[in-house]
Order: sequence, then C-alpha cells, then structure tokens
Amino acid sequence: MFTEVIKPRFLETDALGHINNNTYGVWFEAARDEIFRIFMPKANVKEWNIIMAHSPFDFLKEVFWGKKVIVKTGVIKLGNSSIELGHAVYQEGKLCTTGKCVLIHYNFETKQAVSVPKDIREELEKHLFSGHWLGTLEEIEEYERSNKN
Amino acid sequence: MFTEVIKPRFLETDALGHINNNTYGVWFEAARDEIFRIFMPKANVKEWNIIMAHSPFDFLKEVFWGKKVIVKTGVIKLGNSSIELGHAVYQEGKLCTTGKCVLIHYNFETKQAVSVPKDIREELEKHLFSGHWLGTLEEIEEYERSNKN
Amino acid sequence: MFTEVIKPRFLETDALGHINNNTYGVWFEAARDEIFRIFMPKANVKEWNIIMAHSPFDFLKEVFWGKKVIVKTGVIKLGNSSIELGHAVYQEGKLCTTGKCVLIHYNFETKQAVSVPKDIREELEKHLFSGHWLGTLEEIEEYERSNKN
Amino acid sequence: MFTEVIKPRFLETDALGHINNNTYGVWFEAARDEIFRIFMPKANVKEWNIIMAHSPFDFLKEVFWGKKVIVKTGVIKLGNSSIELGHAVYQEGKLCTTGKCVLIHYNFETKQAVSVPKDIREELEKHLFSGHWLGTLEEIEEYERSNKN
Repeated sequence: MFTEVIKPRFLETDALGHINNNTYGVWFEAARDEIFRIFMPKANVKEWNIIMAHSPFDFLKEVFWGKKVIVKTGVIKLGNSSIELGHAVYQEGKLCTTGKCVLIHYNFETKQAVSVPKDIREELEKHLFSGHWLGTLEEIEEYERSNKN
Repeated sequence: MFTEVIKPRFLETDALGHINNNTYGVWFEAARDEIFRIFMPKANVKEWNIIMAHSPFDFLKEVFWGKKVIVKTGVIKLGNSSIELGHAVYQEGKLCTTGKCVLIHYNFETKQAVSVPKDIREELEKHLFSGHWLGTLEEIEEYERSNKN
Repeated sequence: MFTEVIKPRFLETDALGHINNNTYGVWFEAARDEIFRIFMPKANVKEWNIIMAHSPFDFLKEVFWGKKVIVKTGVIKLGNSSIELGHAVYQEGKLCTTGKCVLIHYNFETKQAVSVPKDIREELEKHLFSGHWLGTLEEIEEYERSNKN
Repeated sequence: MFTEVIKPRFLETDALGHINNNTYGVWFEAARDEIFRIFMPKANVKEWNIIMAHSPFDFLKEVFWGKKVIVKTGVIKLGNSSIELGHAVYQEGKLCTTGKCVLIHYNFETKQAVSVPKDIREELEKHLFSGHWLGTLEEIEEYERSNKN
C-alpha cells in the first residue's frame, strides 16, 4: 500500500464549507504517482502507457480544510492488461472517501491494450490493497474503533 | 433530459493532449445546475439540501480542446430520499464519457436524509434519463450510426 | 471586445461562500478562446504559437454561484511580438474583477519570440479594449451608476 | 521565508506538455497556508479575516510534471491593514515563476479593513522576503549561476 499525505488546499473547499467532491479524483491521481513510476520509471510524459477506463467514488464523510489527509492506495486486481486500484481517504483517523479505478496498460501508437510485463506485474504485486473499507459500513466502523485503542 | 453545452477549457487538457479525466465530474456538476434549481429554486447556498453519496465514471473515448461538448443529464431512479442521475458527454456526435451519481435529499441541521417532497418528485419525473449509452458498446455504436443517417 | 457568458460552477466557490480567486484566471483563459482562434484558426494544439509572460489580477467585489457572469476581453496594446489583453468580470451589472495578460507570439521549435504577422495584427485591432475599469475606482463607480439609469 | 515542497499533479499539466499557468496561483495559495495560520491559529474557516486585493504573476520558465517544485514565500511589505507577499517557484534549481499578492486584514461582519494587530505583525516580520528574483532577469541569472558553483 502506498501512503500519500496531502494538505487540503483552500480552493478545494466549496461554499458548503468542506472539500468539494471533485477533489478526491485529483488526490487519487496524485496518489497514483508511485504507480505511474512503476509503469514509467523516467516519469516522462512521452513514454506514457496507461489509460483509465472506469472509476467509482463513495463519499462517506465530509473532509475539511486545515487538517492533513492520508490517501492509501493499493492494487485490488491484476488482469492481463488491466489493473484495478483502490484508494481510501482518511482525515483525523476516520475513513472519509473511497474510490477505485481500472487502468489499462496501453500502446498509444497502435491504440491497443497491451499485457502488463512480468517485471511490472511483480512490482505491483508488492502493493496489494488491504483495507476494511472494502467491507460494509459496520466493518469500517469496527476497524476505526479498533484503531483508536 | 437536460442539455448543457460546454466549451472545453485549455487548462482542462493534460500533457497527453486531451481532456483530463478529472474534468468530467466538473462538467457533470455544472450540468446538474438545473437539478440543483429544482431542489433550491433561489439558487442560494444557505438553503442547500442535497449531498452526493456515490458516483461512477466510464471513460470511452478521448475528448479534445477546440470543439464543443454536449452533456446530457436525466433522472435514472427516484427513491424515497435518493435520486440517481445519469450523465453522458458527446463530442462531434460521439459518446465519449458516461457517469452516474446518487444524490440524497438531506437536512444539514438534523444531519439526516429526508423524503423528496411531492412537488420536487413530480418535476424530476419530467426529466427521466433515456439513453442508449446505458446499454452495451454495440448498442451505443448502433445508436451513433443511426444518428449519422 | 469579446463577450463570454459564464455560469459559475459550484466547485469554483470556496468555504468563504463565494468564487475562489484562482477561478478568474481560468475564466480569462476561457474568454481568450476567440483570441487563440485568431492565432490558430484550426484550434489545433500542435500549431500552438503563443505563451504568457505576465498576468496581474485585481479583485474588486465578490462573485457568487447561481448568477451568470460576463467576461469582457479586448486588446490593450499591440507590440512587435507581444499582445497585452484586458479582461473584466461583471456580475449583476457590477464590475467584480479585472485582469490583464501579456502574450508573446512564439515559435516553440526555435524557442524565440516572433513578430505578429500583418493579418493577425489587423484582426486583433478590431477588438481593442475599451473599458472604464482601466481607470480609477471612482471612474468605475461612475460608470456603474450611469449604467443603472 | 516559508518553503513549501509541492509535487506537480498530472492534471496540472496542459496539452502543451507543461504546467498550466493557472496552477501557480493554486500553489501560491497552498504556500500561504503558514501565513493563514499566523492570522487564524485555529485554521477555522469561520474566523477567516483576510481577503486578497491584487495579485500579479510572471512566467519565466516552463515547469514540468515528474519533478518536485519548491515554492518560497515571504513578506515584502507590511502596511497598516495590508500585507504584500512574494512567491517564487523553483524546479531543478531554476527560478520558473514569481508572483506577489496584496492581502488585506479584514472584518467580514463590518466589511472593513482592520489594522494588523501587533502580535501578528511581529510574527510576520520574522518571515521577510529576500530574493534576487525581485530584480532584473540578469540578476536572476547571476543568482542562479552563483548557486550552481
């Protein structure tokens, strides 16, 4: 699991007084930076080789400006050319937002999906997602309670 | 169905040369403006009474700067206090991105979900989502082909 | 003068309840779309030939979600390779924000400034900026008073 | 001087392949976080007491995704109720963007500017801006050359 610490930015709030829902995708993209570097070690845009096919978000609790946020990221599923990632946003020890995304290893010239090479696959397998947040709300609450003790 | 015409903004592109995935949620929020006004006729932030619980996105085709985009929005499902909306982004007659969102009619003071009142419900029922994009890719392609003729 | 009508987006507000200051640059960029098309008639990113060197903003009045905004844009000064533009944001007939920007006609391959060709120059001269907002605050207030009558 | 280390986000790039100009204001706002906390120690939006009146930007060099950025922030001038800040963005040891902003200590209830209290003033004076970037381009280049040796 990767851990990204993010300071909410004031412009990421909206008139309701908390972080706007469109911000979480931005944070998740920032948190995928380490994943991007597994696929593109030189962090060079010209060698870009992944696209996103699908992404769902669940908004559980409000997030506020003024307190740091932790974004946990890990691999949920590894297909032939696809990778499913999970993301979870925590603020003050509470799970606030979850999301997933399906990435496709992709050749921009031939415009086709490409198998994930063995070395990348092995590196990704070191960062499997393990999170109670994938369970029911009760499991999440149990997880949070146990983390406080 | 509501129709929102949007000019992609240059900063909404990214280094891959097309619209960044995080932009679609922003456009969908803009396209929900008419829905917001059904719930809050005065468009006053202080009377805000909906929250978003869940939102998935499907990225089908790249969208580019320089050509207008149409965002179609309609009601998919009306629950007791929840409303599911569908969104579809078209550029040059092609379906590029789809999304849904589940909104909850909500009382920010009591922090509880509230039944959607009858008058709002009746207004929402006038804007049901009807879109082939909810079907398979083949159906979408068939729909696009038939629209060209 | 170009006129761009913009609906403020909810995510463009912040926790203070009005439009976040970082939004105006985004609107100004959107309002420059017509200028971009004078320089790049095909609206193709690959033929991009301008860069921004400098840009100041003046924040006069708060702008709110829920009411449309007008952005006025015109040419203030035409140099050899540089163009100075002026922008002004109005909401409900009041001048809220002003900005300028200095663009340079630029060759991305040779990385050098390039003279603005005669045909582009003639087109730009049709869109000169004329606005009392370039004057003192008193002149702006006088202008707004006279617009109400 | 405050130092904020920022990882450019992929969505902050645009189709020209580098960071979009509208991003710098966002980074500067993030870098003002420490200044905000001098004015509002509880980091509570309800006690907000500053507004921005003016802000210019100078774009000197392109900034890229994939390499960290340093934003230096300091106080340029302290007026009775106003504070002028300077910001400078460095990537790979090079000065890329500069900006200033004029903030006003403000009472949102009476809608009036308010003198900066003595304790805040003393705290701000510890963070004066000192940067060659305020000089000419030649001075900036000299400064960068000398930093390499």
